[in-house]
Amino acid sequence: MHLLDDGDAAGWAATFTEDGTFEPPPPGRVISGRRNIADGAAKAAAERAEKGEQHRHWHGMLTVRPAEDGTVWVRCYALIIVTPAGGPSRLNQACVCEDVLVRGDSGWRVRYRRVTRDG
Amino acid sequence: MHLLDDGDAAGWAATFTEDGTFEPPPPGRVISGRRNIADGAAKAAAERAEKGEQHRHWHGMLTVRPAEDGTVWVRCYALIIVTPAGGPSRLNQACVCEDVLVRGDSGWRVRYRRVTRDG
Amino acid sequence: MHLLDDGDAAGWAATFTEDGTFEPPPPGRVISGRRNIADGAAKAAAERAEKGEQHRHWHGMLTVRPAEDGTVWVRCYALIIVTPAGGPSRLNQACVCEDVLVRGDSGWRVRYRRVTRDG
Repeated sequence: MHLLDDGDAAGWAATFTEDGTFEPPPPGRVISGRRNIADGAAKAAAERAEKGEQHRHWHGMLTVRPAEDGTVWVRCYALIIVTPAGGPSRLNQACVCEDVLVRGDSGWRVRYRRVTRDG
Repeated sequence: MHLLDDGDAAGWAATFTEDGTFEPPPPGRVISGRRNIADGAAKAAAERAEKGEQHRHWHGMLTVRPAEDGTVWVRCYALIIVTPAGGPSRLNQACVCEDVLVRGDSGWRVRYRRVTRDG
Repeated sequence: MHLLDDGDAAGWAATFTEDGTFEPPPPGRVISGRRNIADGAAKAAAERAEKGEQHRHWHGMLTVRPAEDGTVWVRCYALIIVTPAGGPSRLNQACVCEDVLVRGDSGWRVRYRRVTRDG
Protein backbone atom coordinates (compact mmCIF):
# COMPACT_ATOMS: atom_id res chain seq x y z
CA MET A 1 0.00 0.00 0.00
CA HIS A 2 3.03 2.26 0.48
CA LEU A 3 3.65 1.98 -3.27
CA LEU A 4 0.09 3.00 -4.07
CA ASP A 5 0.16 5.91 -1.65
CA ASP A 6 3.42 7.13 -3.15
CA GLY A 7 1.85 7.24 -6.60
CA ASP A 8 3.61 4.13 -7.96
CA ALA A 9 0.48 2.56 -9.44
CA ALA A 10 2.43 0.10 -11.59
CA GLY A 11 4.56 -1.00 -8.65
CA TRP A 12 1.47 -1.53 -6.53
CA ALA A 13 -0.31 -3.42 -9.30
CA ALA A 14 2.74 -5.68 -9.51
CA THR A 15 1.84 -7.01 -6.06
CA PHE A 16 -1.05 -8.71 -7.89
CA THR A 17 -0.66 -11.68 -10.21
CA GLU A 18 -0.89 -10.94 -13.93
CA ASP A 19 -4.44 -12.31 -13.93
CA GLY A 20 -5.32 -10.95 -10.48
CA THR A 21 -8.74 -9.54 -9.74
CA PHE A 22 -9.61 -6.65 -7.47
CA GLU A 23 -13.04 -5.85 -6.10
CA PRO A 24 -12.89 -2.33 -4.67
CA PRO A 25 -15.82 -0.81 -2.77
CA PRO A 26 -18.69 -0.37 -3.37
CA PRO A 27 -19.57 -4.00 -4.23
CA GLY A 28 -20.34 -4.90 -7.83
CA ARG A 29 -17.17 -3.82 -9.61
CA VAL A 30 -14.50 -6.35 -10.55
CA ILE A 31 -11.22 -5.14 -12.05
CA SER A 32 -9.41 -7.97 -13.83
CA GLY A 33 -5.76 -8.17 -14.76
CA ARG A 34 -2.71 -6.33 -13.51
CA ARG A 35 -2.85 -3.83 -16.36
CA ASN A 36 -6.41 -2.73 -15.55
CA ILE A 37 -5.63 -2.66 -11.84
CA ALA A 38 -2.67 -0.37 -12.54
CA ASP A 39 -4.72 1.89 -14.79
CA GLY A 40 -7.43 2.33 -12.18
CA ALA A 41 -4.89 3.02 -9.46
CA ALA A 42 -3.04 5.57 -11.60
CA LYS A 43 -6.27 7.43 -12.26
CA ALA A 44 -7.19 7.51 -8.58
CA ALA A 45 -3.67 8.65 -7.66
CA ALA A 46 -3.88 11.47 -10.20
CA GLU A 47 -7.19 12.62 -8.70
CA ARG A 48 -5.69 12.68 -5.21
CA ALA A 49 -2.66 14.60 -6.45
CA GLU A 50 -4.98 17.07 -8.19
CA LYS A 51 -6.80 17.66 -4.92
CA GLY A 52 -3.49 17.97 -3.06
CA GLU A 53 -4.43 15.19 -0.69
CA GLN A 54 -2.07 12.59 0.78
CA HIS A 55 -3.76 9.24 1.33
CA ARG A 56 -2.27 6.61 3.63
CA HIS A 57 -3.65 3.11 3.63
CA TRP A 58 -3.07 1.43 6.99
CA HIS A 59 -3.38 -2.33 7.19
CA GLY A 60 -3.81 -3.83 10.67
CA MET A 61 -3.07 -7.23 12.12
CA LEU A 62 -3.53 -10.14 9.76
CA THR A 63 -5.66 -13.24 10.03
CA VAL A 64 -3.81 -15.80 7.88
CA ARG A 65 -5.29 -19.15 6.83
CA PRO A 66 -3.36 -21.46 4.52
CA ALA A 67 -5.51 -23.48 2.12
CA GLU A 68 -4.76 -26.99 0.93
CA ASP A 69 -4.05 -25.81 -2.61
CA GLY A 70 -1.09 -23.73 -1.41
CA THR A 71 -2.86 -20.40 -1.52
CA VAL A 72 -3.27 -18.31 1.59
CA TRP A 73 -6.35 -16.39 2.68
CA VAL A 74 -5.58 -13.17 4.52
CA ARG A 75 -7.97 -10.74 6.17
CA CYS A 76 -7.19 -7.46 7.85
CA TYR A 77 -8.76 -4.18 8.81
CA ALA A 78 -7.74 -1.15 6.77
CA LEU A 79 -7.94 2.54 7.46
CA ILE A 80 -7.61 5.35 4.98
CA ILE A 81 -6.04 8.42 6.56
CA VAL A 82 -6.25 11.58 4.48
CA THR A 83 -4.23 14.75 4.91
CA PRO A 84 -4.92 17.73 2.66
CA ALA A 85 -2.14 20.21 1.93
CA GLY A 86 -1.69 22.20 5.14
CA GLY A 87 -3.52 19.56 7.20
CA PRO A 88 -5.17 18.45 9.41
CA SER A 89 -5.13 14.66 9.06
CA ARG A 90 -8.47 12.88 9.25
CA LEU A 91 -9.76 9.33 9.39
CA ASN A 92 -11.50 8.94 6.06
CA GLN A 93 -12.82 5.40 6.03
CA ALA A 94 -12.63 2.08 7.88
CA CYS A 95 -12.50 -0.97 5.60
CA VAL A 96 -11.91 -4.70 5.63
CA CYS A 97 -9.45 -6.22 3.14
CA GLU A 98 -9.56 -9.89 2.13
CA ASP A 99 -6.84 -11.39 -0.06
CA VAL A 100 -6.07 -14.71 -1.67
CA LEU A 101 -2.30 -14.91 -2.05
CA VAL A 102 -0.32 -17.28 -4.24
CA ARG A 103 3.37 -17.95 -4.20
CA GLY A 104 5.23 -17.42 -7.44
CA ASP A 105 8.84 -17.18 -8.56
CA SER A 106 9.22 -13.70 -7.18
CA GLY A 107 7.33 -14.19 -3.93
CA TRP A 108 3.75 -13.86 -2.80
CA ARG A 109 1.26 -12.13 -5.06
CA VAL A 110 -2.39 -11.17 -4.69
CA ARG A 111 -4.59 -13.31 -6.89
CA TYR A 112 -7.79 -11.88 -5.52
CA ARG A 113 -8.55 -8.88 -3.32
CA ARG A 114 -11.86 -7.63 -2.04
CA VAL A 115 -12.17 -4.44 -0.02
CA THR A 116 -15.41 -3.60 1.74
CA ARG A 117 -16.24 -0.35 3.50
CA ASP A 118 -17.69 -0.31 6.99
CA GLY A 119 -21.06 1.38 7.28
CA MET B 1 -10.64 -8.91 18.27
CA HIS B 2 -11.88 -9.73 14.74
CA LEU B 3 -14.10 -12.41 16.30
CA LEU B 4 -15.56 -9.95 18.77
CA ASP B 5 -16.17 -7.32 16.10
CA ASP B 6 -17.91 -9.88 13.93
CA GLY B 7 -20.32 -10.70 16.73
CA ASP B 8 -18.78 -14.08 17.63
CA ALA B 9 -18.72 -13.45 21.38
CA ALA B 10 -18.19 -17.12 22.24
CA GLY B 11 -15.32 -17.41 19.76
CA TRP B 12 -13.69 -14.33 21.18
CA ALA B 13 -14.18 -15.51 24.77
CA ALA B 14 -12.47 -18.75 23.77
CA THR B 15 -9.25 -16.77 23.34
CA PHE B 16 -9.30 -16.57 27.16
CA THR B 17 -8.58 -19.49 29.48
CA GLU B 18 -11.59 -21.11 31.14
CA ASP B 19 -10.74 -19.26 34.34
CA GLY B 20 -9.56 -16.10 32.60
CA THR B 21 -10.28 -12.67 34.02
CA PHE B 22 -11.01 -9.48 32.13
CA GLU B 23 -10.90 -5.98 33.52
CA PRO B 24 -12.58 -3.69 31.01
CA PRO B 25 -12.63 0.07 31.44
CA PRO B 26 -13.50 1.94 33.58
CA PRO B 27 -11.38 0.44 36.41
CA GLY B 28 -13.11 -1.48 39.17
CA ARG B 29 -14.93 -4.21 37.28
CA VAL B 30 -13.51 -7.72 37.02
CA ILE B 31 -15.24 -10.30 34.82
CA SER B 32 -14.18 -13.82 35.79
CA GLY B 33 -14.45 -16.96 33.69
CA ARG B 34 -14.88 -17.54 30.00
CA ARG B 35 -18.63 -17.94 30.33
CA ASN B 36 -19.11 -14.53 31.94
CA ILE B 37 -16.69 -12.92 29.50
CA ALA B 38 -18.72 -14.34 26.60
CA ASP B 39 -22.01 -13.19 28.12
CA GLY B 40 -20.76 -9.63 28.56
CA ALA B 41 -19.37 -9.55 25.03
CA ALA B 42 -22.59 -10.89 23.52
CA LYS B 43 -24.60 -8.22 25.29
CA ALA B 44 -22.28 -5.43 24.08
CA ALA B 45 -22.37 -6.85 20.53
CA ALA B 46 -26.17 -6.88 20.57
CA GLU B 47 -26.22 -3.24 21.66
CA ARG B 48 -23.90 -2.26 18.82
CA ALA B 49 -26.00 -4.20 16.31
CA GLU B 50 -29.14 -2.49 17.67
CA LYS B 51 -27.50 0.89 17.08
CA GLY B 52 -26.36 -0.18 13.62
CA GLU B 53 -22.75 0.56 14.46
CA GLN B 54 -19.71 -1.41 13.28
CA HIS B 55 -16.91 -1.40 15.84
CA ARG B 56 -13.36 -2.32 14.89
CA HIS B 57 -10.78 -2.94 17.59
CA TRP B 58 -7.29 -2.20 16.31
CA HIS B 59 -4.34 -3.55 18.24
CA GLY B 60 -0.96 -1.97 17.53
CA MET B 61 2.60 -3.18 17.93
CA LEU B 62 3.23 -5.51 20.83
CA THR B 63 5.63 -5.27 23.72
CA VAL B 64 6.24 -8.90 24.70
CA ARG B 65 8.00 -9.97 27.90
CA PRO B 66 8.32 -13.66 28.78
CA ALA B 67 8.17 -14.44 32.51
CA GLU B 68 10.08 -17.21 34.26
CA ASP B 69 6.89 -19.16 34.93
CA GLY B 70 6.26 -19.61 31.21
CA THR B 71 3.59 -16.94 30.93
CA VAL B 72 4.05 -13.96 28.67
CA TRP B 73 3.15 -10.36 29.42
CA VAL B 74 1.97 -8.40 26.39
CA ARG B 75 1.09 -4.73 26.11
CA CYS B 76 -0.23 -2.84 23.14
CA TYR B 77 -2.15 0.24 22.20
CA ALA B 78 -5.71 -0.26 21.02
CA LEU B 79 -8.06 1.94 19.04
CA ILE B 80 -11.78 1.56 18.69
CA ILE B 81 -12.97 2.75 15.28
CA VAL B 82 -16.74 3.14 14.95
CA THR B 83 -18.72 3.40 11.73
CA PRO B 84 -22.49 3.95 11.92
CA ALA B 85 -24.68 2.72 9.08
CA GLY B 86 -24.06 5.12 6.22
CA GLY B 87 -20.80 6.37 7.74
CA PRO B 88 -18.62 8.25 8.40
CA SER B 89 -15.98 6.34 10.36
CA ARG B 90 -14.70 7.95 13.54
CA LEU B 91 -11.99 7.33 16.11
CA ASN B 92 -13.97 6.47 19.22
CA GLN B 93 -11.37 5.79 21.88
CA ALA B 94 -7.66 5.20 22.42
CA CYS B 95 -6.85 2.46 24.94
CA VAL B 96 -3.99 0.39 26.31
CA CYS B 97 -4.37 -3.40 26.51
CA GLU B 98 -2.27 -5.55 28.86
CA ASP B 99 -2.45 -9.33 28.73
CA VAL B 100 -0.95 -12.27 30.56
CA LEU B 101 -0.87 -15.18 28.15
CA VAL B 102 -0.44 -18.85 28.97
CA ARG B 103 0.28 -21.69 26.60
CA GLY B 104 -2.18 -24.57 26.63
CA ASP B 105 -2.90 -27.60 24.47
CA SER B 106 -4.57 -25.50 21.82
CA GLY B 107 -2.17 -22.57 21.79
CA TRP B 108 -1.85 -19.31 23.66
CA ARG B 109 -4.76 -18.10 25.73
CA VAL B 110 -5.42 -14.93 27.72
CA ARG B 111 -5.36 -15.62 31.44
CA TYR B 112 -5.70 -11.98 32.37
CA ARG B 113 -6.56 -8.86 30.37
CA ARG B 114 -6.83 -5.28 31.52
CA VAL B 115 -7.91 -2.51 29.19
CA THR B 116 -7.56 1.11 30.24
CA ARG B 117 -8.89 4.13 28.38
CA ASP B 118 -6.69 7.12 27.68
CA GLY B 119 -7.96 10.36 29.12
CA MET C 1 7.52 4.77 21.14
CA HIS C 2 5.76 3.27 24.17
CA LEU C 3 8.70 4.47 26.28
CA LEU C 4 8.40 8.00 24.92
CA ASP C 5 4.64 8.10 25.41
CA ASP C 6 5.04 6.91 28.99
CA GLY C 7 7.38 9.79 29.72
CA ASP C 8 10.58 7.73 29.80
CA ALA C 9 12.59 10.09 27.60
CA ALA C 10 15.94 8.55 28.56
CA GLY C 11 14.68 5.03 27.86
CA TRP C 12 13.36 6.09 24.49
CA ALA C 13 16.57 7.93 23.63
CA ALA C 14 18.45 4.72 24.45
CA THR C 15 16.84 3.15 21.38
CA PHE C 16 19.19 5.44 19.43
CA THR C 17 22.93 4.94 19.15
CA GLU C 18 25.11 7.22 21.27
CA ASP C 19 25.86 9.28 18.17
CA GLY C 20 22.40 8.90 16.66
CA THR C 21 20.71 11.75 14.84
CA PHE C 22 17.04 12.62 14.77
CA GLU C 23 15.31 14.90 12.29
CA PRO C 24 11.86 15.67 13.65
CA PRO C 25 9.31 17.63 11.66
CA PRO C 26 9.28 20.28 10.33
CA PRO C 27 12.38 19.74 8.11
CA GLY C 28 15.53 21.65 8.92
CA ARG C 29 16.25 20.62 12.50
CA VAL C 30 18.80 17.91 13.29
CA ILE C 31 19.22 16.71 16.87
CA SER C 32 22.54 14.93 17.33
CA GLY C 33 23.52 12.51 20.06
CA ARG C 34 21.52 10.47 22.51
CA ARG C 35 21.84 13.07 25.23
CA ASN C 36 20.32 15.83 23.13
CA ILE C 37 17.61 13.51 21.83
CA ALA C 38 16.69 12.63 25.41
CA ASP C 39 16.65 16.29 26.48
CA GLY C 40 14.33 17.26 23.64
CA ALA C 41 12.01 14.34 24.35
CA ALA C 42 11.89 15.11 28.08
CA LYS C 43 10.93 18.70 27.35
CA ALA C 44 8.15 17.67 24.96
CA ALA C 45 6.88 15.08 27.46
CA ALA C 46 6.76 17.72 30.19
CA GLU C 47 4.72 20.00 27.93
CA ARG C 48 2.24 17.24 27.20
CA ALA C 49 1.94 16.39 30.89
CA GLU C 50 1.40 20.09 31.65
CA LYS C 51 -1.45 20.16 29.13
CA GLY C 52 -2.87 16.93 30.56
CA GLU C 53 -2.69 15.24 27.18
CA GLN C 54 -1.84 11.60 26.53
CA HIS C 55 -0.01 11.12 23.24
CA ARG C 56 0.22 7.71 21.59
CA HIS C 57 2.59 7.17 18.69
CA TRP C 58 1.34 4.37 16.46
CA HIS C 59 3.79 2.81 14.01
CA GLY C 60 2.29 0.79 11.16
CA MET C 61 3.63 -1.99 8.99
CA LEU C 62 7.32 -1.83 8.21
CA THR C 63 9.15 -1.74 4.93
CA VAL C 64 12.57 -3.24 5.75
CA ARG C 65 15.56 -3.13 3.40
CA PRO C 66 18.92 -4.51 4.50
CA ALA C 67 21.93 -2.66 3.13
CA GLU C 68 25.24 -4.22 2.22
CA ASP C 69 27.02 -2.52 5.12
CA GLY C 70 24.88 -4.40 7.64
CA THR C 71 22.58 -1.50 8.42
CA VAL C 72 18.87 -1.76 7.79
CA TRP C 73 16.59 0.91 6.33
CA VAL C 74 13.08 0.89 7.75
CA ARG C 75 10.09 2.99 6.75
CA CYS C 76 6.66 3.06 8.27
CA TYR C 77 3.62 5.24 8.63
CA ALA C 78 3.06 6.81 12.02
CA LEU C 79 -0.02 8.30 13.64
CA ILE C 80 -0.14 10.50 16.69
CA ILE C 81 -3.33 9.94 18.67
CA VAL C 82 -4.02 12.52 21.36
CA THR C 83 -6.43 12.20 24.27
CA PRO C 84 -6.90 15.15 26.62
CA ALA C 85 -7.96 14.52 30.22
CA GLY C 86 -11.62 13.54 30.04
CA GLY C 87 -11.34 12.74 26.30
CA PRO C 88 -12.26 12.41 23.52
CA SER C 89 -9.39 10.84 21.57
CA ARG C 90 -8.46 12.47 18.30
CA LEU C 91 -6.17 11.78 15.33
CA ASN C 92 -3.59 14.51 15.65
CA GLN C 93 -1.19 13.93 12.78
CA ALA C 94 -0.22 11.41 10.10
CA CYS C 95 3.53 11.05 9.58
CA VAL C 96 6.13 8.92 7.84
CA CYS C 97 9.09 7.58 9.84
CA GLU C 98 12.35 6.49 8.20
CA ASP C 99 15.10 4.83 10.21
CA VAL C 100 18.58 3.53 9.64
CA LEU C 101 19.19 0.79 12.18
CA VAL C 102 22.51 -0.70 13.22
CA ARG C 103 23.11 -3.81 15.25
CA GLY C 104 25.20 -3.41 18.37
CA ASP C 105 26.04 -5.46 21.44
CA SER C 106 22.64 -4.86 22.98
CA GLY C 107 20.54 -5.24 19.84
CA TRP C 108 19.32 -2.93 17.12
CA ARG C 109 19.62 0.80 17.60
CA VAL C 110 18.51 3.81 15.56
CA ARG C 111 21.48 5.56 14.00
CA TYR C 112 19.33 7.97 12.02
CA ARG C 113 15.63 8.81 12.14
CA ARG C 114 13.67 11.27 10.03
CA VAL C 115 10.02 11.94 10.64
CA THR C 116 7.99 13.92 8.11
CA ARG C 117 4.44 15.15 8.54
CA ASP C 118 1.83 14.58 5.87
CA GLY C 119 0.27 17.73 4.49
